[in-house]
Amino acid sequence: MSSRPTRLEVEDLQQGLRELQELLPKLRPAEGGQAASAEALADVRARLDALHPADIAVVLEALPLEERLVAWDLVKADRDGEILLEVSDAVRESLIASMDSRELVAAAETLQADEIADLADDLPDQVMQDVIRALPQEERERLRAAMSYEEGSVGALMDFDQLTVREDVTLEAVTRYLRALDELPGQSDQLFVVDREQRLAGSLPLARLIVSNLELAVGQVMLPESVKFRPEQEAEDAAQAFERYDLVSAPVTDHFGRLIGRLTVNAVMDYIREKSAHDQLAEAGLEEEEDVFAPVWNSFRNRWSWLAINLVTAFIASRVIGAFEGSIEKLVALAALMPIVAGVGGNSGNQTITLIVRALALGQIAEPHWKKLLRKELAVATVNGVLWGTLLGAVAYALYGSIALGGVMALAMTLTLLLAALMGVAIPYLRVRFGRDPAVGSSVLITACTDSGGFFIFLGLATLTLL
Amino acid sequence: MSSRPTRLEVEDLQQGLRELQELLPKLRPAEGGQAASAEALADVRARLDALHPADIAVVLEALPLEERLVAWDLVKADRDGEILLEVSDAVRESLIASMDSRELVAAAETLQADEIADLADDLPDQVMQDVIRALPQEERERLRAAMSYEEGSVGALMDFDQLTVREDVTLEAVTRYLRALDELPGQSDQLFVVDREQRLAGSLPLARLIVSNLELAVGQVMLPESVKFRPEQEAEDAAQAFERYDLVSAPVTDHFGRLIGRLTVNAVMDYIREKSAHDQLAEAGLEEEEDVFAPVWNSFRNRWSWLAINLVTAFIASRVIGAFEGSIEKLVALAALMPIVAGVGGNSGNQTITLIVRALALGQIAEPHWKKLLRKELAVATVNGVLWGTLLGAVAYALYGSIALGGVMALAMTLTLLLAALMGVAIPYLRVRFGRDPAVGSSVLITACTDSGGFFIFLGLATLTLL
Repeated sequence: MSSRPTRLEVEDLQQGLRELQELLPKLRPAEGGQAASAEALADVRARLDALHPADIAVVLEALPLEERLVAWDLVKADRDGEILLEVSDAVRESLIASMDSRELVAAAETLQADEIADLADDLPDQVMQDVIRALPQEERERLRAAMSYEEGSVGALMDFDQLTVREDVTLEAVTRYLRALDELPGQSDQLFVVDREQRLAGSLPLARLIVSNLELAVGQVMLPESVKFRPEQEAEDAAQAFERYDLVSAPVTDHFGRLIGRLTVNAVMDYIREKSAHDQLAEAGLEEEEDVFAPVWNSFRNRWSWLAINLVTAFIASRVIGAFEGSIEKLVALAALMPIVAGVGGNSGNQTITLIVRALALGQIAEPHWKKLLRKELAVATVNGVLWGTLLGAVAYALYGSIALGGVMALAMTLTLLLAALMGVAIPYLRVRFGRDPAVGSSVLITACTDSGGFFIFLGLATLTLL
Repeated sequence: MSSRPTRLEVEDLQQGLRELQELLPKLRPAEGGQAASAEALADVRARLDALHPADIAVVLEALPLEERLVAWDLVKADRDGEILLEVSDAVRESLIASMDSRELVAAAETLQADEIADLADDLPDQVMQDVIRALPQEERERLRAAMSYEEGSVGALMDFDQLTVREDVTLEAVTRYLRALDELPGQSDQLFVVDREQRLAGSLPLARLIVSNLELAVGQVMLPESVKFRPEQEAEDAAQAFERYDLVSAPVTDHFGRLIGRLTVNAVMDYIREKSAHDQLAEAGLEEEEDVFAPVWNSFRNRWSWLAINLVTAFIASRVIGAFEGSIEKLVALAALMPIVAGVGGNSGNQTITLIVRALALGQIAEPHWKKLLRKELAVATVNGVLWGTLLGAVAYALYGSIALGGVMALAMTLTLLLAALMGVAIPYLRVRFGRDPAVGSSVLITACTDSGGFFIFLGLATLTLL
């Protein structure tokens, strides 16, 4: 929290960022032209210095690569570490690639153990070894610990900024101890009370410290119980606890009950944002967040795997149609009508599966309720099927003048919607049963079912009844 | 924060919730059987009493309607208000429908003005009038103010729990004032310093109060500047500021600079979660969060509008195919191959538009960069087109033995991917240009373009070259 934004209103800040974004491209030496003036450079440098590291990160992310590196060179070297923490993975890669080992080691050394752990994956091995060697013993152990927890666990989000006190000291002594600190770590809403073996005994909220008689002992005013976490727990569970109980910070303990770190609301909020971004991108078939100005090759790598999967499912659907080529040859209207059946089925199936995946994530579906859910989804599908099926049947009749074709259309639409509802419930049910994450690729799976299934139902019905 | 969860570990809590979920169905009188025993009822009642309101909300959301109402009856009436705040909109509706006016007024009266405002939309008019009448003057004005701000604005998220002090009093006096309060409101990490006209002069973090000499005046130790918000600002901007600057609370001021409320990190976190849920649901074509156990009719209402839009776009695509019925009649392979072109194009277009909508939300795309972005997306599409086009062309040749058909397939795939890239950039660009939210319905729009466009390109090329 050392560097607060100097501007008061967020609107002013946004204005400042926009101005910087317009100034920076002018610094780049124009082709055949001369470099920017020393004055212009000094101006931008001063503007960057006045910004919070998180705001500099925003500026860097919004710049094309060349201009981004010009700006990066203007940032004071002792802020490099903080800024690398704030930018997205893709942009971090581009910045790190522009730095030499010496600069990287210097940047990492301005950070704390839990922060270095966040960068570890992106730093060259040699740099990490140098950084580890330069750390004091305690920090080195913390770094090892922080790096050992899996992504998405509480351990990967925790920091080591917890303030601890003993049960038997007076609040007077606690206050003196706090005064001796230069400033309290961010999000310090409470002190953790530990015994000689670092076992957590309770917590002392600052608000309680302020309103209590300073002659009392910590043990007399502390809260003996509070929500606490274990480092191997899932971050999502911790996030839900932060939301439900309005926490600002919480202790993390090992399985002997010893305090090993703390989790703050800000780390939790960052996690929620990243997770929701990740889900949203995965939904659209992207591996990860992409630097919008990334080289073409990086973008291709990020996107090809989902396109390939999509290609396979589209190919299967195509072979289903291929099996009915004889029917289409005889009644070409089938070719024009079949994508409607598959498309509406896909949309409806996606509605069902999205709701169920969400309800599962929120713990709303207990084992005995699956049957009830399936019945409900089938009922909704029946209502939709009768309504849209009748409408589409009427349209098909109007276009092609065949009552039989209209009937096939209506029946196929209803059956495809029932299939979509069935698969929309069955896919997440089976994935949970087999211990898989029901969210991953749910949209691809359901669309594959409704495409191939929709074509098969419609063309099959038409072949049986019309030809 | 008055009711902390009594269990220590989140895992224990989850276990407790699961047990409750298993007990509750047994309370419902079985068909022809007898009602639950008084003992069983008392047991569940005691378990519910021990839970935090947010946990009771979780229990209620995971129960089918009938059992949910049994549990709701067992909850102490004075907690009804808090719990109604915590449940989702859909579940809230079902609970409110089971209560009479008297109960609703009593529940609302346990809440604060900003909380009543959150419920206002769901309460019957008569109940709201009774509630407003019963409020003291100050609270009534706050309620009016809170209800006047649009959803998604800072004003709709703020509360009125700010603690204020004057610049000229001593820290000693501040401490005495705080001791006189029973306990500090949740998320109170700072006091706000105001003048006689309630104009914000600075802030006094509790951490600073603790470490300062109590004889000093507030004006000597306060921070004169801090991030502050206006009630009409977008909540999303505030959320970004909370994330970037690691805030716990922040003041909200009117345009004379007077303090009118405060925003807390917890309100912001709830907002982020709700927004991400809303986006995720909209992506799948759902109007809003759905109670998984909702009656069929409610579910239908939530889903029909997107299905109808989907039907229209599918119908347009179908008419494009209809225009080429003559070609399909002559070469029926076209019918089997065309969904592949449209499908892969749709997936690729969704990748592009998702990235751009996200980058726009994060403020990463400045006006001069659109051209650069378009060039990049077209380049990625060309790479994809050459790769997948060649592969699909080869497959088409292998299946149907026609080199010309393979060539048409390859070219159509490439052109459709270029179209997808173009529209993936153009749609958000145009929507931003015309002041619209680029996120709404982006997936539907791009899919409509790539479906109709893909069919047109493939069938058109085939008609020109093969027939």
